Amino acid sequence: MNFSSDNVTGAHPAIVAALAEAAAAGAMPAYGADPITESLNARFAEIFEHEVAVFPVATGTGANALALSALTPPWGGILAGQDAHVEVDECGAVEALSGARLMTVATPDGKVTVEALAARIAPIRKGDQHQVQPAALSITQATECGTVYSPAEVAALGAFARAEGLRLHMDGARFANALVGLGCTPAAITWQAGVDALSFGATKNGALAAEAVVFFDKALAENFLFRRKRAGHLVSKMRFLSAQLAAYLDQDLWLKNAAHANQAAADLALGLIDLPGVDLDYPVDANEIFIRLPLGIADALFRAGFHFYPWGAPPADPATEPGLYRLVTAFDTAPAAVTAFIATARKAAEEIA
Amino acid sequence: MNFSSDNVTGAHPAIVAALAEAAAAGAMPAYGADPITESLNARFAEIFEHEVAVFPVATGTGANALALSALTPPWGGILAGQDAHVEVDECGAVEALSGARLMTVATPDGKVTVEALAARIAPIRKGDQHQVQPAALSITQATECGTVYSPAEVAALGAFARAEGLRLHMDGARFANALVGLGCTPAAITWQAGVDALSFGATKNGALAAEAVVFFDKALAENFLFRRKRAGHLVSKMRFLSAQLAAYLDQDLWLKNAAHANQAAADLALGLIDLPGVDLDYPVDANEIFIRLPLGIADALFRAGFHFYPWGAPPADPATEPGLYRLVTAFDTAPAAVTAFIATARKAAEEIA
Amino acid sequence: MNFSSDNVTGAHPAIVAALAEAAAAGAMPAYGADPITESLNARFAEIFEHEVAVFPVATGTGANALALSALTPPWGGILAGQDAHVEVDECGAVEALSGARLMTVATPDGKVTVEALAARIAPIRKGDQHQVQPAALSITQATECGTVYSPAEVAALGAFARAEGLRLHMDGARFANALVGLGCTPAAITWQAGVDALSFGATKNGALAAEAVVFFDKALAENFLFRRKRAGHLVSKMRFLSAQLAAYLDQDLWLKNAAHANQAAADLALGLIDLPGVDLDYPVDANEIFIRLPLGIADALFRAGFHFYPWGAPPADPATEPGLYRLVTAFDTAPAAVTAFIATARKAAEEIA
Amino acid sequence: MNFSSDNVTGAHPAIVAALAEAAAAGAMPAYGADPITESLNARFAEIFEHEVAVFPVATGTGANALALSALTPPWGGILAGQDAHVEVDECGAVEALSGARLMTVATPDGKVTVEALAARIAPIRKGDQHQVQPAALSITQATECGTVYSPAEVAALGAFARAEGLRLHMDGARFANALVGLGCTPAAITWQAGVDALSFGATKNGALAAEAVVFFDKALAENFLFRRKRAGHLVSKMRFLSAQLAAYLDQDLWLKNAAHANQAAADLALGLIDLPGVDLDYPVDANEIFIRLPLGIADALFRAGFHFYPWGAPPADPATEPGLYRLVTAFDTAPAAVTAFIATARKAAEEIA
Repeated sequence: MNFSSDNVTGAHPAIVAALAEAAAAGAMPAYGADPITESLNARFAEIFEHEVAVFPVATGTGANALALSALTPPWGGILAGQDAHVEVDECGAVEALSGARLMTVATPDGKVTVEALAARIAPIRKGDQHQVQPAALSITQATECGTVYSPAEVAALGAFARAEGLRLHMDGARFANALVGLGCTPAAITWQAGVDALSFGATKNGALAAEAVVFFDKALAENFLFRRKRAGHLVSKMRFLSAQLAAYLDQDLWLKNAAHANQAAADLALGLIDLPGVDLDYPVDANEIFIRLPLGIADALFRAGFHFYPWGAPPADPATEPGLYRLVTAFDTAPAAVTAFIATARKAAEEIA
Repeated sequence: MNFSSDNVTGAHPAIVAALAEAAAAGAMPAYGADPITESLNARFAEIFEHEVAVFPVATGTGANALALSALTPPWGGILAGQDAHVEVDECGAVEALSGARLMTVATPDGKVTVEALAARIAPIRKGDQHQVQPAALSITQATECGTVYSPAEVAALGAFARAEGLRLHMDGARFANALVGLGCTPAAITWQAGVDALSFGATKNGALAAEAVVFFDKALAENFLFRRKRAGHLVSKMRFLSAQLAAYLDQDLWLKNAAHANQAAADLALGLIDLPGVDLDYPVDANEIFIRLPLGIADALFRAGFHFYPWGAPPADPATEPGLYRLVTAFDTAPAAVTAFIATARKAAEEIA
Repeated sequence: MNFSSDNVTGAHPAIVAALAEAAAAGAMPAYGADPITESLNARFAEIFEHEVAVFPVATGTGANALALSALTPPWGGILAGQDAHVEVDECGAVEALSGARLMTVATPDGKVTVEALAARIAPIRKGDQHQVQPAALSITQATECGTVYSPAEVAALGAFARAEGLRLHMDGARFANALVGLGCTPAAITWQAGVDALSFGATKNGALAAEAVVFFDKALAENFLFRRKRAGHLVSKMRFLSAQLAAYLDQDLWLKNAAHANQAAADLALGLIDLPGVDLDYPVDANEIFIRLPLGIADALFRAGFHFYPWGAPPADPATEPGLYRLVTAFDTAPAAVTAFIATARKAAEEIA
Repeated sequence: MNFSSDNVTGAHPAIVAALAEAAAAGAMPAYGADPITESLNARFAEIFEHEVAVFPVATGTGANALALSALTPPWGGILAGQDAHVEVDECGAVEALSGARLMTVATPDGKVTVEALAARIAPIRKGDQHQVQPAALSITQATECGTVYSPAEVAALGAFARAEGLRLHMDGARFANALVGLGCTPAAITWQAGVDALSFGATKNGALAAEAVVFFDKALAENFLFRRKRAGHLVSKMRFLSAQLAAYLDQDLWLKNAAHANQAAADLALGLIDLPGVDLDYPVDANEIFIRLPLGIADALFRAGFHFYPWGAPPADPATEPGLYRLVTAFDTAPAAVTAFIATARKAAEEIA
């Protein structure tokens, strides 16, 4: 009954089983020379229909900061949404590991647009030694608003990036959820749309702690081993990151997990949306819901033991104005929890009326 | 039959079981607010008989670099052995995350001495704006030579550090092996001897990927949350690091694992030492052996499928001069492997003779 | 006839004479131990009516970045105006030397306001390890719009800073111009209003290359010698920076120079403001004018050999809509140049009419 | 009568005159777009008989740290002598601005040798992600011992560097003194011998504060404008750095100044060397003398008002064992001061005998 985040979850049994198997497998070379890690490049290449260079790391912040450090010189700028995780929730890790500056634009629905980016960089004098020069663009898929960029939207950003000499990074902490929401191929939403590097997340969607930096342009990965180690992000028994990733991809577990989470989110939204005073701030494209709830409904849910966060600034008059809340579903969200959440909300709505 | 390192091992079943249990335990707060993580401070305090501030991270390099960053300003110097892991095997991570410079001294047996340190800093003008000012001392326990500092040796370094205004860090990647080798309390070899911060390793001794930065002076930990996050080292589902550490400490697993590894090393050394041309470069205080082997013996072992590394510069004439090799035992070293290794070596020695 | 910036100027003869004298004075200790440098603390203390720690450097960017590095930890945030020099024109130097992130607010007239700052930091969760924590506020005096903060305005920002636990930095690249514009004491606009550190500029107002970082709280200066040297900003023959600063302050040269420049700006504005289509974007509080000029007038001025910059985004229809231009006067602006500029503009205006 | 360093000197009148002229020359573009700065590339190209990219900065530490930052990635290592200025006297500036690690070798006479370098890097595993990878070599010309590398010696180092994939940097704080000592062309001792970048010093040899980073491979300079600005080292009124450099090169002033200083050093050494107990530690190749003086002679000189530094560790028994002292001559060393120094020493020697 916890809808506060997808990182409050445990891990999927199949991934745990893969870890247990790897743990019992006896000696393997450390630092990524083990067969599980060595199989990842081919596996990711198959999934993305493109040659890739894959680097497992233990955290999403590490993945983002290291990936971006490979896409910009220290005097570069990284364009991103004002609400992007790299800006809001990583304590300056991107700047610390890359040296670069984040340059943000407003994202009314979590998505950066070519128009906003163009306006943001218009005043910057190209090549002027006084000014931080935009070098990369980082977008989040699914976004921080639970919306999802379409392939066409990413392609437009990719074209803009190429035209402006920027590299394109995708923060895919919820990449599987986005992909399932879109129903397209991994290729269509990444390199075919101009993405140079992807932070491929598994942790939120069933792994314990496993992310991967995926480069579609292998030249960008040339020095990545040094970047990763120098930041302390080279895990010695790499098999344990890689086993998580391998199991995550095996038999479409990643897509099944994401489909489960997305369905739970859709069910939840559908079950709530017709209640009086309830409204969605954004379309529910993946596994996050941003919903307005009257105080009486929210309070009834909290009293019933549901966990979820109020979001953003509180309403001016909470008594009369519905507040914004975030609900996040996950690979392990129980259908019964969804049903119970809806039932509790509906009952509270009736009592209010 | 792999003696190349203790990080080629899998993981101990009890630790895997703890992970599986944590994975199935349902929702828990992320980022360290879970009950498993919250129990660690008390557990470590009990073991070390001292108030501590404990911060789990996934890598030893991360632990060292972050711990040291809290002990020195960016313009400081960190004294360490010439063969220390922070100098030789971390690709500059300590410098990258702390800003400080490593200042090394020769360590004939892996141990830094007060004399060597005093000589190293003697020419540095205190307070002179032109010179990097020594701020911390980092020692490795057990050392890179498989030797172990006694409490008296650490205390002498601790006294030197205090007198010179230096903070004292212990890289305890093999802390349990050292402790078992010494037979002293954890307190005696750390804070009672002047250690301010410890990189407490579990990975090499049975965990999958889990280390902890332990501060004995909590004031030093004041901003550590920010340091850890800003370097991308905050694991979101922290329970999975903490569960490893908790299981590692539970029922003395860490000490039992280390005792097993150390015994295997002792057995190995004892079984080899009387062979002609075989010699130890250093005492075997923990789970690492640095041994001279005639070429015929080494070749026979390699042919028999044993894995281990030649170490240091090769001998001038390998045909007549025994080469140096490193053997590392671990929590899961099979007694049969030790027996087989010795038998193979003895047989080769006989054939040579 | 160059109104493009105050750093296109040469240097004041009195300052050059002081340099020549210092050059001929024979041997003096290097690195700031010379008597000229040693006299600066007392001289600045007298001028600011407060104990200070003064550190000469050769560039304004160096002064800003080093001063701010002493006011924030690497994981801190520095609040500043969106158009501040540290944000727009220093190529990320503040971030590079401090590690911190710039957090900007809109400044309609070049001035940051308590309201804008409060709104900027409201969403930041205090003490949350995920978020860059605001640590300092940097304001520019005179501002990038040629306006000047009053003592009351700075005091309001100082009170806000104290209440929020922020240190207050003033970028005084044009400090003398601001001071003369205000007619208040140096104390009133700095430490009495809550300023902790000042980048005291001399270069734009008659020096060759000389700025000073002035700390009003000497505790903040504790490690500044190391910060300055480690960034390569310790000038060996420091006497030559200090002699510039001493001459600059001697016999009120700094105030006279600023008064001259401000008067030229006021004369220029007064002479232009009644022309048709001409308008000021901001009050002329110091030595910068931001003025709307019809295309015909601007072109006539350029053709007559005057140098000055168009500013900001060009108008949608330059033919009918006056464009924005920046005019900067300086210590050496010839009254005849002002007169000629006005005359040329008036003649052009008549021809257009 | 000050022989403590060449940076205790004032400045040469011709350079001061050039500054005065530049100061009175009216408006010039800032930030290096002025004609004086723009003339430097051609002037240096002529002197070095090679295309160059020249960047003036105000400090030698800035020149070294910025030049080296262009020759190594942040995970690289910079080989240098144990007594190099970058190691001993720049407070970690090279590491701070480049991210790289200094890797030092012993230099018995101030010169790094191919043998010492080869031994230093032999244990480093090429391309291994765990180890800082040597990327550059920095040598000092003239050395910290007052000796000078011959073109053949530099060429040997250049060949070694090329073979090992290292870039070669020369710290030329006393480049003119070395050049005059050698009597060769600037080309012979730099790019013809494999030097990629030179820190060209003028400050110690007659300028007020002016150094230049000179790249012989212009590709290395590609982003140097950003590196310089981002470290706060872009001087706004660049004409004042450039005017110093131009005057320094004009009419061979730099060579005449160095010849004067070198001659004074030679005279001093010659006048002292036959005194009992007096000995030179190194040949006097340029303008620095490292000399053993009996205590009685040294004391007599100090009492007579001569300034110079004892050097290195004091002798075990200063009463009987001559101590080491450093004497530095400069462009403005008065012949009378040399004569007086020698006379005072000889008189003291006689009194002792």
